[in-house]
Amino acid sequence: MEQVEVSPPQPMEIRIKVVSTSLCRSDVTAWQSHAIFPRIFGHEASGIVESVGEGVTEFEEGDHVLTVFIGECMKCRHCTSGKSNICEVLGLERRGVMHSDQKTRFSINGKPIYHYCAVSSFSEYTVVHSGCAVKVSSLAPLEKICLLSCGVAAGLGAAWNVADISKGSTVAIFGLGTVGLSVAQGAKLRGASRIIGVDTNPEKGEKAKAFGVTEFLNPNDSDEPLQQIIKRITDGGADYSFECIGDTGMMTTALQSCCDGWGLTVTLGVPKEKPEMKAHYGLFITGRTLKGSLFGGWRPKSDLPSLVDMYTKKEIEIDEFITHNMPFEDINKAFDLMKEGRCLRCVIHMPK
Amino acid sequence: MEQVEVSPPQPMEIRIKVVSTSLCRSDVTAWQSHAIFPRIFGHEASGIVESVGEGVTEFEEGDHVLTVFIGECMKCRHCTSGKSNICEVLGLERRGVMHSDQKTRFSINGKPIYHYCAVSSFSEYTVVHSGCAVKVSSLAPLEKICLLSCGVAAGLGAAWNVADISKGSTVAIFGLGTVGLSVAQGAKLRGASRIIGVDTNPEKGEKAKAFGVTEFLNPNDSDEPLQQIIKRITDGGADYSFECIGDTGMMTTALQSCCDGWGLTVTLGVPKEKPEMKAHYGLFITGRTLKGSLFGGWRPKSDLPSLVDMYTKKEIEIDEFITHNMPFEDINKAFDLMKEGRCLRCVIHMPK
Repeated sequence: MEQVEVSPPQPMEIRIKVVSTSLCRSDVTAWQSHAIFPRIFGHEASGIVESVGEGVTEFEEGDHVLTVFIGECMKCRHCTSGKSNICEVLGLERRGVMHSDQKTRFSINGKPIYHYCAVSSFSEYTVVHSGCAVKVSSLAPLEKICLLSCGVAAGLGAAWNVADISKGSTVAIFGLGTVGLSVAQGAKLRGASRIIGVDTNPEKGEKAKAFGVTEFLNPNDSDEPLQQIIKRITDGGADYSFECIGDTGMMTTALQSCCDGWGLTVTLGVPKEKPEMKAHYGLFITGRTLKGSLFGGWRPKSDLPSLVDMYTKKEIEIDEFITHNMPFEDINKAFDLMKEGRCLRCVIHMPK
Repeated sequence: MEQVEVSPPQPMEIRIKVVSTSLCRSDVTAWQSHAIFPRIFGHEASGIVESVGEGVTEFEEGDHVLTVFIGECMKCRHCTSGKSNICEVLGLERRGVMHSDQKTRFSINGKPIYHYCAVSSFSEYTVVHSGCAVKVSSLAPLEKICLLSCGVAAGLGAAWNVADISKGSTVAIFGLGTVGLSVAQGAKLRGASRIIGVDTNPEKGEKAKAFGVTEFLNPNDSDEPLQQIIKRITDGGADYSFECIGDTGMMTTALQSCCDGWGLTVTLGVPKEKPEMKAHYGLFITGRTLKGSLFGGWRPKSDLPSLVDMYTKKEIEIDEFITHNMPFEDINKAFDLMKEGRCLRCVIHMPK
């Protein structure tokens, strides 16, 4: 815990008082990587606009917002295509600086502290580009909906937007963290008849049922290769499979677990190592498709407000994903719980 | 050239007098591989039904037919799904025998001669399962439409059924043989605005224009990596790319040549070696899709008759693909031309 100076928002930026932020696996992955340091992590968050920079008309002080790690400029050919959420202007920011001037808004004694994913919510205040925040209803509880800022939305979107799961289908999900279980929830709401969940943590089996998983497989329980088990119990393979671990070997397994003809594998995970996936060409020739999903295909500004509405109407579940709540000062406990696989989402509450 | 005994059709089989058959790259690949021998190659063919086996009601003597290397039983869950052409009963036959009894219908002095791809059209007569032939209009010229039995249909289907190319889009095609140029024809008919053709044979550049290719790239003309050239000249990558060579390295290049957000790569080629393709997970996460195409997604019996009709109405082009015609006795010349890359399709005409 350090005192950091947060400079005022520059043109087209907003400064946010963070209310709640949850820890996502990618924060841990980036922290453990050889990325830019010193840096403030955190990207799944909700907050209240504290001040706005020059030119910002979309937000005003007091607005409730969700932060987003991929922005939406609403103007580039991706944002206007209607078929992409990979904004050309505010896409994934990996250099730890602001989009506009490639500088930071955090500093300690004049020394820059870098941003993470254009959000950096593990701070009482943060500055983001106005395209990287989404105004939401002030009636929705910020301490819950922060999960729609990344993990839960990513899983639901992968099931709905990217895979477009159809009723009665069979789904296999590799990795039952928040993202994988959100895929399960999305599949259940689409009426999938079988949802097979795969995880090496035996405790996940029971917990996953609440999110729609109908069958649990622990690869450590059998010598038979996973893809063989899934093909056997589904009479040829799943209609859809989702890789939610971030393991390129498991992406191949997911593809092999899909059926001929129309099997679709969606890859959501971000690997820590071995970034190259391998697959026999025959898997494709016989009718399989492999596609990726970044933030579930959602265009943040266009789509998140309606997801928030679905939550307030109890059409989707968020609360069940929150296994722990803690004050900001205990944030390191959240990192420990995540590393030990003992949580889904730890929500960190900022001082009021 | 050898005298081979062709036994009568068994139940649900038909014996066909082959009229015309063309040489496809896969015949050469299989011939050069360590596959089953002795064997009769040839799978792209047209003919006339000579006799029918017990239980066959769909065909009668004199019917004009196209052979197909993947059958359509019309009953399995793939054939009835409406979204797959990978028939569970009559799918790709790799063992060189008939589906029903795992035996051959060809022999020399009682010694079996194996089939190829359930067709074996490099013979005056052949026996196929009735699910591996399609009745077509007797008005269509058999010596032309034999190309719809594989190559031309495979390319058109990849463009229309698998990729579903949209008007005004940019397409990159790797490999300008019959399949690649058929993809170009399909893209042109869909109104693609740019069709970039890639081939190492400099002669292809001029010829490809007739099929719709608007720009030609020869990788040997530049030190700049292909994917980089394509991304540069298309301002971010093609909307669609097609691998029609059968080179897993080129499948990766094709994927890299597609744009973020909605780039779609279709792989049609069958590699002779290195069957495993590799790709960085980031290509998928940023919105690319990779899918395979077998026979362009066409369900042979359901779809080929209308493709034949399109040809007779001059809505699609076949004649331009026929660079050589030769009598059966000159078939080895066709192999030479294919190996030397000096032909598109050589049509081999059987003795009347």
